[in-house]
Amino acid sequence: MASKKSNRRGFLKGGAALAGLAAGGGAQLAKGQTQGAPEKADELIAYGDRSHFVTSVRKPVAERHSPDEFGLTFHVLAPLQDSVGIITPSSLFYTATHRGAFVPDIDPQEHRFMIHGMVDRPLIFNMDELKRLPYESRIHFIECLGNRARPTHKTVQETHGLTSCAEWTGVRLSLLLKEAGVQNAASWIVAEGAEEVKGASSIPLAKAMDDCLVCYAMNGESLRPQQGFPLRLIVPGFEGIYQIKYLRRIKVVDRYYMTYDDYGHINPDPKVAALTHQIGPKSVITYPSGGQKLSGPGFYEISVLAWSGAGAIRGVEVSTNGGESWQTAELRSPALPMAHTRFGFHWKWDGKECVLMSRCTDELGTVQPTRAEVAKYWNQPVDKVQVRGADNTVQPWKVLSDGSVHNGLA
Amino acid sequence: MASKKSNRRGFLKGGAALAGLAAGGGAQLAKGQTQGAPEKADELIAYGDRSHFVTSVRKPVAERHSPDEFGLTFHVLAPLQDSVGIITPSSLFYTATHRGAFVPDIDPQEHRFMIHGMVDRPLIFNMDELKRLPYESRIHFIECLGNRARPTHKTVQETHGLTSCAEWTGVRLSLLLKEAGVQNAASWIVAEGAEEVKGASSIPLAKAMDDCLVCYAMNGESLRPQQGFPLRLIVPGFEGIYQIKYLRRIKVVDRYYMTYDDYGHINPDPKVAALTHQIGPKSVITYPSGGQKLSGPGFYEISVLAWSGAGAIRGVEVSTNGGESWQTAELRSPALPMAHTRFGFHWKWDGKECVLMSRCTDELGTVQPTRAEVAKYWNQPVDKVQVRGADNTVQPWKVLSDGSVHNGLA
Repeated sequence: MASKKSNRRGFLKGGAALAGLAAGGGAQLAKGQTQGAPEKADELIAYGDRSHFVTSVRKPVAERHSPDEFGLTFHVLAPLQDSVGIITPSSLFYTATHRGAFVPDIDPQEHRFMIHGMVDRPLIFNMDELKRLPYESRIHFIECLGNRARPTHKTVQETHGLTSCAEWTGVRLSLLLKEAGVQNAASWIVAEGAEEVKGASSIPLAKAMDDCLVCYAMNGESLRPQQGFPLRLIVPGFEGIYQIKYLRRIKVVDRYYMTYDDYGHINPDPKVAALTHQIGPKSVITYPSGGQKLSGPGFYEISVLAWSGAGAIRGVEVSTNGGESWQTAELRSPALPMAHTRFGFHWKWDGKECVLMSRCTDELGTVQPTRAEVAKYWNQPVDKVQVRGADNTVQPWKVLSDGSVHNGLA
Repeated sequence: MASKKSNRRGFLKGGAALAGLAAGGGAQLAKGQTQGAPEKADELIAYGDRSHFVTSVRKPVAERHSPDEFGLTFHVLAPLQDSVGIITPSSLFYTATHRGAFVPDIDPQEHRFMIHGMVDRPLIFNMDELKRLPYESRIHFIECLGNRARPTHKTVQETHGLTSCAEWTGVRLSLLLKEAGVQNAASWIVAEGAEEVKGASSIPLAKAMDDCLVCYAMNGESLRPQQGFPLRLIVPGFEGIYQIKYLRRIKVVDRYYMTYDDYGHINPDPKVAALTHQIGPKSVITYPSGGQKLSGPGFYEISVLAWSGAGAIRGVEVSTNGGESWQTAELRSPALPMAHTRFGFHWKWDGKECVLMSRCTDELGTVQPTRAEVAKYWNQPVDKVQVRGADNTVQPWKVLSDGSVHNGLA
């Protein structure tokens, strides 16, 4: 009875309203009473919502309130502080776009996807045709290049919330390109979405022929509108801007094309680009993290999320003394290539101030760098590091003796 | 603008209303217009819903409309005909219960979980305490024993919709039992939920000490109410009735206990029960399946879902001639232990009437039986097989020359 309507009203209004909801909507039901009167049965049967006690929500990037008056930016952070496991619920998946109108309302019956350019047989597919082709389902993370921790950030949602992970289902791009017949002189593709501003990215042909998926589904259902419904290109391990939403065409070309998506961070040399597009090995402690509070000395399980654009995560280490020493964490989930991977570490807190850190190593043996290491590499002062490209530095969380947890960069 | 409200109203009314919705709600927006006016921005940011063009819903088991006038049954089928990959969206996850009020509205702050009986140290946990303990995330299917195909069923939702698969996160039951100190004479546990009717199941101690999880999350967020919020016991590979929702206590005992959950199908011999509780290797073609229609001769990708309570699926074979010959299907997803696994098979339909079937083999080498094999085993006529226990027989789909697909059992 309280269930659906108050639920939806409630959690969309944010924290303050939620406290009221729990006391108002929730308290009308004695414990054990049923949720949903008979007249609500059809709704409960068709589609099961979450509990009105569950209030985890996304929030906009502070610097990019969305939509702004021009409708140009829409950056929304996933609530990593509440995350467990490796799957991000589709409703809580991070979103980032600079491409004008933020969610085009596309009728899948009208949508078309074209492959053209340097191919022998240009192809146009409708959604039904694509869905008749062989497909794959793989679990992959996505991360926006803008996922950079700043000293002003309070929570892990703010420092790292521009990454999420889902099961993606679609057709291998290489299958479609082979069907089209890629010409010998081709070396890049340009993938373009159907938004009003036609966002596009240049992607090395070698990557396009490797493991990219032309996806129509995530987490077992159609893509969500904010994730590119009805069609999205998934480029495993590459930064978010390559994961073209509302995919409408791929042009096979013989050079790097400057596009709306270029922000000066993409290398026009295909050999360099093929490597530097990859998200480096990265991890972050999601519990305990900034804004959370320990209830007192005792046992805690430190929860770490790790991922790498280069493949599977081989291991995670945790430091509870600000990086002086490191200990091995335990794997807590499947460890799949280019997927979020969950680790845990038994920790007995003695009640004293300390700094928690995690670092990971991927299957290539690459180790996530500390901020100090990056500062040294770029010859910058460690408290003013300007990370170039993707920021995969170690995130410190400072635990005060009162149990409160704070951003160690502050 | 059209988005959320018409969406929710629309897909809950079923197919006929939906056609009207697409023409009414959808057509008010020109293609490319944005979904969600600025005043809706907060909702879009907080929680992203699915497209109003996506209409897949669950439906009640025909024989068990829910809730009935006594509120005793609530059996809801997952829309497998629309499924892809291995994850079932939490909103579309199947639900089955006979335990009175179908969805208790439990405040997680008030919920307690107790371990008692033949243990040295009885334990009571609140949710915060449980969440501080080491946890694991694993992808496992659940299937209700009542998931039996009948000749009257039209679609794969009706024949096989009482199974779903999710990523589950929780604490290993063995860790909690070791902490409590199980006494030597113990041989069973009884797990009980917090519904008005206290549903409970007897589970062999050997299984409890093996891979069971006391779960608080599924698919990266808190359990959904219909899946046992805030706490559920996951007993990997065992039939659905053991996956106790609203878990409130586990009693360690020295014998099989008769409970509300017993329907005469549970074997009181712990050695027999430990084996027969397992769901056998099972698979079903989800596309093309009953009620779907092929558009004409040509290439189709047959999509098969397979699972086994005994471990990972080793392989799937497909027959396009009613079982006369079988060919190997290709793996299309991760193949995880006791998880849904997706396979695909390239098929060129010649336009003639035919019968499609799938059968799987699990890592123990057990092969899914045909209905004829089961009939022979039980010495029954093949058209009137009364499957005892779980029904994991091969499902035939008959394709007529007009492309329509029908239940081959009919």
